[in-house]
Amino acid sequence: MACIEPRVLKGFRDFLPPQELTRREMVEKIERSFRSFGFVPIDTPALEYAEILLGKGGGETEKQVYRFTDQGGREVALRFDLTVPFARFMAEHRAELTLPFKRYHIAKVWRGENTQRGRYREFTQCDFDIAGSSSPGADFEILLLIRNTLGSLTGGQKPAGRGVTVRLNHRGLFNRFLASLGAGDQSVEVLRRVDKLAKIGLEGVRELLGELLGEEQSRRVLDYISLGKEGDFNQTLKKLKAAAGEGEDTQRLEALGHWMKDTGTEAGFVLDPSITRGLDYYTGVVFETFLDQLPGIGSVCSGGRYDNLAGLYSSERIPGVGASIGLDRLQAALEELGGGTARPGPGAAVACLGEGEAGRAQALAEEFRARGLTCEVFLEPKKLTQQFILAEKRGIPWVIVPPEKAASPGGPLTLRNIPARESREGLTIEAAAALIRDGARDSATPPSLP
Amino acid sequence: MACIEPRVLKGFRDFLPPQELTRREMVEKIERSFRSFGFVPIDTPALEYAEILLGKGGGETEKQVYRFTDQGGREVALRFDLTVPFARFMAEHRAELTLPFKRYHIAKVWRGENTQRGRYREFTQCDFDIAGSSSPGADFEILLLIRNTLGSLTGGQKPAGRGVTVRLNHRGLFNRFLASLGAGDQSVEVLRRVDKLAKIGLEGVRELLGELLGEEQSRRVLDYISLGKEGDFNQTLKKLKAAAGEGEDTQRLEALGHWMKDTGTEAGFVLDPSITRGLDYYTGVVFETFLDQLPGIGSVCSGGRYDNLAGLYSSERIPGVGASIGLDRLQAALEELGGGTARPGPGAAVACLGEGEAGRAQALAEEFRARGLTCEVFLEPKKLTQQFILAEKRGIPWVIVPPEKAASPGGPLTLRNIPARESREGLTIEAAAALIRDGARDSATPPSLP
Repeated sequence: MACIEPRVLKGFRDFLPPQELTRREMVEKIERSFRSFGFVPIDTPALEYAEILLGKGGGETEKQVYRFTDQGGREVALRFDLTVPFARFMAEHRAELTLPFKRYHIAKVWRGENTQRGRYREFTQCDFDIAGSSSPGADFEILLLIRNTLGSLTGGQKPAGRGVTVRLNHRGLFNRFLASLGAGDQSVEVLRRVDKLAKIGLEGVRELLGELLGEEQSRRVLDYISLGKEGDFNQTLKKLKAAAGEGEDTQRLEALGHWMKDTGTEAGFVLDPSITRGLDYYTGVVFETFLDQLPGIGSVCSGGRYDNLAGLYSSERIPGVGASIGLDRLQAALEELGGGTARPGPGAAVACLGEGEAGRAQALAEEFRARGLTCEVFLEPKKLTQQFILAEKRGIPWVIVPPEKAASPGGPLTLRNIPARESREGLTIEAAAALIRDGARDSATPPSLP
Repeated sequence: MACIEPRVLKGFRDFLPPQELTRREMVEKIERSFRSFGFVPIDTPALEYAEILLGKGGGETEKQVYRFTDQGGREVALRFDLTVPFARFMAEHRAELTLPFKRYHIAKVWRGENTQRGRYREFTQCDFDIAGSSSPGADFEILLLIRNTLGSLTGGQKPAGRGVTVRLNHRGLFNRFLASLGAGDQSVEVLRRVDKLAKIGLEGVRELLGELLGEEQSRRVLDYISLGKEGDFNQTLKKLKAAAGEGEDTQRLEALGHWMKDTGTEAGFVLDPSITRGLDYYTGVVFETFLDQLPGIGSVCSGGRYDNLAGLYSSERIPGVGASIGLDRLQAALEELGGGTARPGPGAAVACLGEGEAGRAQALAEEFRARGLTCEVFLEPKKLTQQFILAEKRGIPWVIVPPEKAASPGGPLTLRNIPARESREGLTIEAAAALIRDGARDSATPPSLP
């Protein structure tokens, strides 16, 4: 019988244990941070009515969406983000929820994108939102949560910037500035072109804006978006006020600036008028997050404030603020920084002294598992030296050699330290467990930025 | 603008926070148990080549599979189980893995099934296998792992059966018995019909077998599969040997029986010749797992030994043994038993004393989060009594009232116990955190069977 060639689709990938362990460890830290702020998880179906996911349709996204007709003749599609399902969720479950509703959602999404430049067609998003609040305090909470969450992944320490910088702006402020230039009716298109800054550079943006606004206006926009290049949040805010005047938006930014001081987190935030986020969707603050050691990979967590989350599905206006972490890009970045590969927990294995010994070996292993340790049982009755070699190959630092069959089941153990090539004999279970635990602690190096 | 009706597809569902928290807590316990045995996680794409997932095709499964042609003209399908992707994974990554390979995979799968009787079209499977070992010790390890994992979810205690019973059998033994009856060439069909026992009852099976084998043979098969109804593993094994003779299969079962004694786990296992598992795939031990308090819902974890995992994709024969937990059925069962709903962690919220206070409120909340507690910040400056009502509605047991603006930031706090409707004044952060932590401990009731 001819075999089918085993392969995955272009743009898709398998996660082998080291990558999957790292991923799960990242998700664990992210969840711990979300929950510490009182955020709760939800989940939604991978497959939904195409009409619901694509709304009135059109646009770049539609071409990338995996859609088809199901067995029942329904037009369905795989979700391409977690924002649209959340909007549908809020409209559908509004009566069951108390606002403000702080939710997170960590799940895969699918887009049939061009796979150049390390883009995948299946990737994981971690979205978190405060829905049902217009309060500037909600904006601040999301900003603080971004900083804490990403900080917990990069291993940065308080009270420094924690290894990440959040760059933020306000859509309303930018729009008022454009209106003062007489370019207010082109604001969506200007925002979209400015949003390409990181990709195409200042000269590229100058060209794009020149086509749209002419040389003079284009120059003024470029001057404006360069005002936040450096310097302190409040100084930049002063310059922006001078350029665009004051309004509800500058008051809100001012409050955010104060609260950064109150929490001692100013070092982690930059007011940057070049941050626009391309999407129509946002109406208030917008933000992007960069790793201090690797700014070139782009934003690893972006978001903003919106004023009508579920408008497509409900007549109730639900304002909110939220952000999304791109887990795949972040994982690649942490791996590049050399701190991103998780290892299995403190490991030991009970050596196999004979096929008939599997029961006693498992009973012994259970003693170690009950003490919180990972403990395997080797299944093949090979020579001990061969079992030590297997342990080395598998990255298992300790092998427990049980007492010979004849001895009492609670008899003394031999513990082999694989990396050190040393054995200790005559140990109790308690003493062996303590050695394994201490060894794990000594070699535990949590992933951290250099 | 007319709204689109917010709804999910038939057979699909949203998970609201209480259900999703429970789910995540279940997955956490399952993973902890898997890892304690040295199993490591993998992940594979949701979407694969249809040819790979469906193999030579045909059968019941094919009709249920979500398949379509993607933007690039490829025939693709959503995975309908985690076994086929694992087989493809093993063939593709064989060179990168050390055997035996102990992996687990927790992920969603999709089947366009009839949605009657609480079946969903999107559901979560937790698969775990030891691939690359023929050893009876591997069979035993999977059995012990099932017992420990399900036991950790039902809250059962050692050394009792932990609230679950694993019923096992050996395909080879059953086949030898059928051969001794002269019905060996019909064994696949007999196994399939016997597998319906739980669904259609003894009379139903008698009828189905009668059609196939005639009355006399059918009676003898029914007598045989009833041999394990009760009683101890070794007694049943003796009866089965008397009926079918001895072989490699009975030796293997005998070893398993001894090892159950060695580990003190006999109470959790029953040798049951009526367990057959319908799939061709299995060649050795097969097993199903039932909750002692709710056996009627059927098996919550099933599996068995196979001798050629990746045969469709590789010429290398990889034997192994594994099982799969149906998370959705298990979650429904635990909810029915009244122990399955998780609540968010120890919760507190900092009251809002004014819009401008968001920074100080967050700084205070950070003190509690740093002590491992969940701490929200209320965002709207309402009257304190209204904030207490909000806390009650949201199920938050404690509200922290910060010192007035004028006071020093480290000043004394007031802590409101919402269920008790009592306030304690003049507390330090440390004292308040201790009260919240103790309160959480007092009300912590881990999900357990009645």
